Amino acid sequence: MTKLNELQAYLLAHNIDAAFITTPDNVFYFSGFNSDPHERLLGIMVFKDSEPFLICPKMEMPDVVAAGWKYEVVGHEDTENAWDVVAKTVASRKTAFNTLAIEKSHLTVERYEAIKERYENVTFKGIDEKINEMRICKGKEELVKMRKAAELADYAIQVGCDAIAEGKTEMDILNEIESAIKAKGYAMSFDTMVLAGEKAASPHGTPGDRKIQHGDLILFDLGVIYEGYCSDITRTVAFGQPGEEQIKIYNTVRAANENAIAAVKPGVRAMDLDKIARDTISAAGYGEYFTHRLGHGLGISVHEFPSINGTNEMVLNEGTVFTIEPGVYKTNVAGVRIEDDVVVTNTGVEILTKFTKELVIL
Amino acid sequence: MTKLNELQAYLLAHNIDAAFITTPDNVFYFSGFNSDPHERLLGIMVFKDSEPFLICPKMEMPDVVAAGWKYEVVGHEDTENAWDVVAKTVASRKTAFNTLAIEKSHLTVERYEAIKERYENVTFKGIDEKINEMRICKGKEELVKMRKAAELADYAIQVGCDAIAEGKTEMDILNEIESAIKAKGYAMSFDTMVLAGEKAASPHGTPGDRKIQHGDLILFDLGVIYEGYCSDITRTVAFGQPGEEQIKIYNTVRAANENAIAAVKPGVRAMDLDKIARDTISAAGYGEYFTHRLGHGLGISVHEFPSINGTNEMVLNEGTVFTIEPGVYKTNVAGVRIEDDVVVTNTGVEILTKFTKELVIL
Repeated sequence: MTKLNELQAYLLAHNIDAAFITTPDNVFYFSGFNSDPHERLLGIMVFKDSEPFLICPKMEMPDVVAAGWKYEVVGHEDTENAWDVVAKTVASRKTAFNTLAIEKSHLTVERYEAIKERYENVTFKGIDEKINEMRICKGKEELVKMRKAAELADYAIQVGCDAIAEGKTEMDILNEIESAIKAKGYAMSFDTMVLAGEKAASPHGTPGDRKIQHGDLILFDLGVIYEGYCSDITRTVAFGQPGEEQIKIYNTVRAANENAIAAVKPGVRAMDLDKIARDTISAAGYGEYFTHRLGHGLGISVHEFPSINGTNEMVLNEGTVFTIEPGVYKTNVAGVRIEDDVVVTNTGVEILTKFTKELVIL
Repeated sequence: MTKLNELQAYLLAHNIDAAFITTPDNVFYFSGFNSDPHERLLGIMVFKDSEPFLICPKMEMPDVVAAGWKYEVVGHEDTENAWDVVAKTVASRKTAFNTLAIEKSHLTVERYEAIKERYENVTFKGIDEKINEMRICKGKEELVKMRKAAELADYAIQVGCDAIAEGKTEMDILNEIESAIKAKGYAMSFDTMVLAGEKAASPHGTPGDRKIQHGDLILFDLGVIYEGYCSDITRTVAFGQPGEEQIKIYNTVRAANENAIAAVKPGVRAMDLDKIARDTISAAGYGEYFTHRLGHGLGISVHEFPSINGTNEMVLNEGTVFTIEPGVYKTNVAGVRIEDDVVVTNTGVEILTKFTKELVIL
């Protein structure tokens, strides 16, 4: 069953006449067409009992077909109202249109009102949960791509380590990493982070002209996209021999990462994994410095479902891919985060990112 | 009057108790704090008669203060409901909260419902138009940044021209451009486009391993961010002597660009500019190949208001910055687009991007 067929079957089973998919990542998931339409309308209307159609800016129509979309493509010009085009196409199908599912976590109030204006008596339902559920479990083909994406992330970390030298700035090193990935023909899945010394102690700092100095811990957080699928890795390495407490923090974070990974198997709850990592860090006395959730789902989006945090009771099943990324950020001492991408297998876990977690001292 | 004061005055004048700003670009506009919160909540609540507060993920609180935010900052953890935190902070202000303005073009249906759940009797209004109007007219300080951003875009095009050589791929050249900008410590405002030969005839193609050949037209579309403000430039250059029709198309697009720019002054309507460029291209017989609008507003966002298209009656005033980017895409003949960033001055126009529009033959 294709992904579209599965969604259609769901609509039929729940007596929903159609679903309108507008998240670019979901459009890619269902159509193979990967595009950021900015403020223009891009969407797929999936009917329970008629073929779907895809609406896009007119100039992108050939690209949609080239991406493998086999159904109707409807283009709109910048000068026409895209919702009128949607309405006209819907009308041409002569199918029921009384219940419409929308992506509540993506559709804006403005667009919601534009639809409501045209379909006063339509009942709206959310389709987010179903799509999240579909996307959470990666199929074999998707996992092949995610393994490749992770391999490229490992390579990028190696490039970063090789680039480190006294006096270079964070941006210099970032630049070498991104160039190496681009030279291979790939794009990063988000803005690469290279943070040195005291800056690594801010979990969401911005790389700049801070120069690498002897004694720095250097944190890399980066990812690469392979055929639409993202990786996301963090490693923290030392330039010169680190101090005693820095080593203790590193080993604590590494243990938290490894303990959580060891617990991954079908049936484990997201919150259990978070707790294992948090308990490890708290036992070492650094609980207050682990200020974020353990991880997040990964796939077409860098951040997707499920969220691996202390309150998510969701049970994880085979095929779910997510990050495990504990961190300790103690101002003026050390900022350390170690992040891997993992997938739940039928018996346990496969770790996609393979760069060493031994403390690398350069 | 600061931007926040202006918004507050608007709320007071329109009897709106508060506005909740959640677009990251608007949060930056009002607070100086530039961050992509992904699925986490980041927002500014502006009250008509109380000081604003900013809510963000807890770990970003120090960055908000460092960015210059002088009012209350409220952090939320991944494990708590951010909307409860908002509600608690609102309650602490003991101010009226019966009418709430939201950004309808950004706020999702899910978030809208989360707010409505907590404030059943609140009346919602849109604040988008007011903020767009504020952002459309750039102040002196903003223009200083946009000039710098445009200067960097000119430099990037020069790097691209210098990089062109037979046998290199589009990605090779793209890589050299982005490396040069990163080496200066800046980021691109969007994914750089380098398209060669037949690929340039797709206005939204993707750079890949197409190798540069003698006789290619090569299209660069790129931009650089300077202190939060974007540039966006397109130039099309020739590698080897172009054919007769390619030259005709180039000259047609250039004339369309220059004719539209010559008409920019306070009081001109967006649609008039689009028409001037379109008429120029149609007169040369290429009307059907100019498949998109003339341009778009530019500032903190790469695409912002106003849209410069054939139906927008909006009158342009001093300080408005936008692109003028006519293009002709004739399959198997030529893809040419020439894009400049311009600002309406008190008497006419200032062109921010200055890279030559003479046909560059390499």
